[in-house]
Amino acid sequence: MPLVGVIVGSATDQPVMEDTLKTLADLGVEAELIVASAHRNPRKVQDYVESAPASGVEVFIAAAGGAAALPGVVASLTTLPVIGVPIASSELGGVDALYSIVQMPPGIPVATVAVGAWGARNAALLAAQILGLKYARIRDAVESQRERLRQR
Amino acid sequence: MPLVGVIVGSATDQPVMEDTLKTLADLGVEAELIVASAHRNPRKVQDYVESAPASGVEVFIAAAGGAAALPGVVASLTTLPVIGVPIASSELGGVDALYSIVQMPPGIPVATVAVGAWGARNAALLAAQILGLKYARIRDAVESQRERLRQR
Amino acid sequence: MPLVGVIVGSATDQPVMEDTLKTLADLGVEAELIVASAHRNPRKVQDYVESAPASGVEVFIAAAGGAAALPGVVASLTTLPVIGVPIASSELGGVDALYSIVQMPPGIPVATVAVGAWGARNAALLAAQILGLKYARIRDAVESQRERLRQR
Amino acid sequence: MPLVGVIVGSATDQPVMEDTLKTLADLGVEAELIVASAHRNPRKVQDYVESAPASGVEVFIAAAGGAAALPGVVASLTTLPVIGVPIASSELGGVDALYSIVQMPPGIPVATVAVGAWGARNAALLAAQILGLKYARIRDAVESQRERLRQR
Amino acid sequence: MPLVGVIVGSATDQPVMEDTLKTLADLGVEAELIVASAHRNPRKVQDYVESAPASGVEVFIAAAGGAAALPGVVASLTTLPVIGVPIASSELGGVDALYSIVQMPPGIPVATVAVGAWGARNAALLAAQILGLKYARIRDAVESQRERLRQR
Amino acid sequence: MPLVGVIVGSATDQPVMEDTLKTLADLGVEAELIVASAHRNPRKVQDYVESAPASGVEVFIAAAGGAAALPGVVASLTTLPVIGVPIASSELGGVDALYSIVQMPPGIPVATVAVGAWGARNAALLAAQILGLKYARIRDAVESQRERLRQR
Amino acid sequence: MPLVGVIVGSATDQPVMEDTLKTLADLGVEAELIVASAHRNPRKVQDYVESAPASGVEVFIAAAGGAAALPGVVASLTTLPVIGVPIASSELGGVDALYSIVQMPPGIPVATVAVGAWGARNAALLAAQILGLKYARIRDAVESQRERLRQR
Amino acid sequence: MPLVGVIVGSATDQPVMEDTLKTLADLGVEAELIVASAHRNPRKVQDYVESAPASGVEVFIAAAGGAAALPGVVASLTTLPVIGVPIASSELGGVDALYSIVQMPPGIPVATVAVGAWGARNAALLAAQILGLKYARIRDAVESQRERLRQR
Repeated sequence: MPLVGVIVGSATDQPVMEDTLKTLADLGVEAELIVASAHRNPRKVQDYVESAPASGVEVFIAAAGGAAALPGVVASLTTLPVIGVPIASSELGGVDALYSIVQMPPGIPVATVAVGAWGARNAALLAAQILGLKYARIRDAVESQRERLRQR
Repeated sequence: MPLVGVIVGSATDQPVMEDTLKTLADLGVEAELIVASAHRNPRKVQDYVESAPASGVEVFIAAAGGAAALPGVVASLTTLPVIGVPIASSELGGVDALYSIVQMPPGIPVATVAVGAWGARNAALLAAQILGLKYARIRDAVESQRERLRQR
Repeated sequence: MPLVGVIVGSATDQPVMEDTLKTLADLGVEAELIVASAHRNPRKVQDYVESAPASGVEVFIAAAGGAAALPGVVASLTTLPVIGVPIASSELGGVDALYSIVQMPPGIPVATVAVGAWGARNAALLAAQILGLKYARIRDAVESQRERLRQR
Repeated sequence: MPLVGVIVGSATDQPVMEDTLKTLADLGVEAELIVASAHRNPRKVQDYVESAPASGVEVFIAAAGGAAALPGVVASLTTLPVIGVPIASSELGGVDALYSIVQMPPGIPVATVAVGAWGARNAALLAAQILGLKYARIRDAVESQRERLRQR
Repeated sequence: MPLVGVIVGSATDQPVMEDTLKTLADLGVEAELIVASAHRNPRKVQDYVESAPASGVEVFIAAAGGAAALPGVVASLTTLPVIGVPIASSELGGVDALYSIVQMPPGIPVATVAVGAWGARNAALLAAQILGLKYARIRDAVESQRERLRQR
Repeated sequence: MPLVGVIVGSATDQPVMEDTLKTLADLGVEAELIVASAHRNPRKVQDYVESAPASGVEVFIAAAGGAAALPGVVASLTTLPVIGVPIASSELGGVDALYSIVQMPPGIPVATVAVGAWGARNAALLAAQILGLKYARIRDAVESQRERLRQR
Repeated sequence: MPLVGVIVGSATDQPVMEDTLKTLADLGVEAELIVASAHRNPRKVQDYVESAPASGVEVFIAAAGGAAALPGVVASLTTLPVIGVPIASSELGGVDALYSIVQMPPGIPVATVAVGAWGARNAALLAAQILGLKYARIRDAVESQRERLRQR
Repeated sequence: MPLVGVIVGSATDQPVMEDTLKTLADLGVEAELIVASAHRNPRKVQDYVESAPASGVEVFIAAAGGAAALPGVVASLTTLPVIGVPIASSELGGVDALYSIVQMPPGIPVATVAVGAWGARNAALLAAQILGLKYARIRDAVESQRERLRQR
């Protein structure tokens, strides 16, 4: 059963997010990925976010570019932690996605990470850190990964 | 019956949008205003956007600040024209709201106007121009307003 | 007879706008494209904007880069709805065109869409949404297109 | 025993962060606040981050302005989740703090929230959402708070 | 007879431009000021720019804020030198006006000066430098002003 | 004898400025180009600017990238008109050069044009417009060039 | 005899730089301040920079706003270390001064510090750190100051 | 024995910094380079900065991209002069690294140079200028290098 639900706003953003899935797998965190746009498939987003907890999802990761509404929309539909990854897919180079994700109004937080590939990887690590509070095996995997980073 | 539905993302943004209502009234365009946040009251937004056409609404105006998802969310729920007004309510001074509203992905347009008071007024004029294609009395009111502007 | 008049500020911007024409054609909306710069051919712009309504044009789409005055100049010459598309053709990467188009002063709105290819496509959809208020066949085409988007 | 350790980079940033403490208290989440700068008191930061888990801290919130290194430094010293709040205390108005906090390199994530007061409040909510995965009473408090938000 | 024609896009921008007139007067350069918006009174702008040379105008100064089309529109209507002054009157603080004035496409230059009061003063000095090539008394006045600046 | 002195801050910026020389030649305006950096060869800049008027130079064009001090330094050494061209040669893409050239303090104007190739061409046209006030043959060449632009 | 020469580009920037002098005095570093603009008094700047080493100056601090050429101009006239302080005196809020000071071309470095009051103080500390390499009493004063900072 | 300690935040940033080492070598300044990230190897950074002075290091150069904490962290661990080089390695193109390095809070200065290759070279020159206060042979090398620059 997936602990992390990764939602990508557009199929063109999917390659950037492959490292999210790979990093989660390396840490032994089950995950699933769906492609659904907050603007083009709002019903699909809503259905997934509302049903995912029943399949075991405890953390969402949402990635989008441009007027990147997806992470905020996911956050508006759940009280589980939502991690947002800005993608540099528009002509403005990612600063638009960053502002659209991080500047959430009081009441509905999104845990925002760096634009693009750096954020894709860190979203997975942040999800594992969060789940590590509850699951000892994930906490151990995060610790080992950090140790390897220090050795490198 | 209202022709224009004005949705404001936060009660603190309402004062900026008073000029929208006043300008619509000056042009003889019936309008109604509701306060509903895409992030805090997504259901209220959805209910309003889906029911408003039945009460006569043909154009939406949505105003929001920060990660201003509201105009895009409204646009994702309707195929009626949606006008977006960025509000300078966050610490980043409105550029965040502008990017969050204008950089919509292909498929779901939002007709974006200037940040703040300028945009609040122009949203009303743009709504009237759009409705003027169909309603001769509104087209005439727009023409008269433009004529007065030229005389000033 | 064209319902939409597409004006491109420079021949070099024309390729970006091909998708506007294609999208309008897909929606069954007649359109015509002219190349005319607000700065280099102001008379040509004026003549076109003033004569186009007589040939049936009800909505203008204007695309330009850099100090992108074209959409605002078109809007100053008509009270029909004007949609502006910022093009990323200058060294500043499109943010200059975006600001030059969206920050219109009170009185003369321009309905601004995203920078570049995203905006080129959305300008066509927005024009069709606007015309759909008046023409049932265009409203139906917009609805079908949205439905296809949702299915994808 | 505190579950959340709030670290503020400068005493002048403390007023902005009062709402973090108040929101955590409202949600029944024990917290403590220390003032320590990553640049001026790196040893104090290190000592606190390394000792806090023993007193019960499971999530850190770090707030800083300008070259806001504090959240990243905290994140480099722990594998617990770290939430970063950019403060608009420098002449550049907060965009410097935002970039300094969110653009973390691969390996060391910081969960970044909005600049200033919005982020101060949302940092508390995000911490509670994270802790809610493990503590049912906090999850319930988060749910109630969200319900109140929807009613407002 | 005025040698310099100063055009201000909005009455609210006029106070900033008082120093332009004062500086020109100090240098003994005759000038006149009109208020006319490129967007709201395009015909008035066109009439003035086309008729002013007959009254002696050899240099234009145009000041505007937001999507500051005025200087570029003036430049499109004349081959006399046009100086543009960006005004910080919009919510975006003047960077929009700067980009809208300076990023002119090849073929139609605008001589852009600093945003706001600095530019208002320098526009007058630049106009005098330009006229000084032809008029010895203005060249002398510019030299004397520079000398006083050095002494200060 | 050259009427226009073109100074380029770095040999690497010279290719961008070839169009300046070509455009001046097309308009029949004699020009000369030197490479001299305000930072690396301040004496050479000073010597050139102080001696050029004796060889006939009446307008300077100065192009530079990054902390583009050259146009302002030239302007500080002469009361002849100085045109500044920002070059996009640094990692920040030209916005640094634009700000460094246009934001001159009161007293010392620089007539700034667009970043890069657009500005390189327009600097030549602006110089010709300025010289056209005094030299009828240049004014005629400018008029003809504008007429050709309109025909295109 | 002064070890540090502080040059301020405009009398209006002087208040911001008072803390530089006070901090240097606290550290026992002799300093002198002159007001001289790179653009308005280039000769005064040159005379000062060329003569100051003879009076004992070993480090320069230069502060300026807008197109802040002063630090770079000072650096072009000396091979002593030059520290640049961007001042937020223009309408663009200091980012223009920052870019104008930090983006120096290869060959002529300026040691840039933060915009405004933060940088004013840090310029003094940096100057003392540099002088501390040579003067043991200054190194000791810097160490004591750092120790007090840690205690606070 | 090395006089300059160069620390690079990531192995991927090392190529940009080769010119720093080459320039120092050309000036006869002994240097050493280590790769250590403030975020991933904080202990390695701390150990190096605390031990380097004993091996002769008197100036540090630290280069990093994104949320570039490294220069500030080094500066927090020493009172020797620290030079920071922003690297354009993230999706935001270097402006994030610039802000993260230059906007240091009062008390802990970092001498910031230009983004990327320009700064890599200038960091070496600045280090040599600083060391030149104390070591006559380095001062002479700096003077010779400047002289060659002037001749070029």
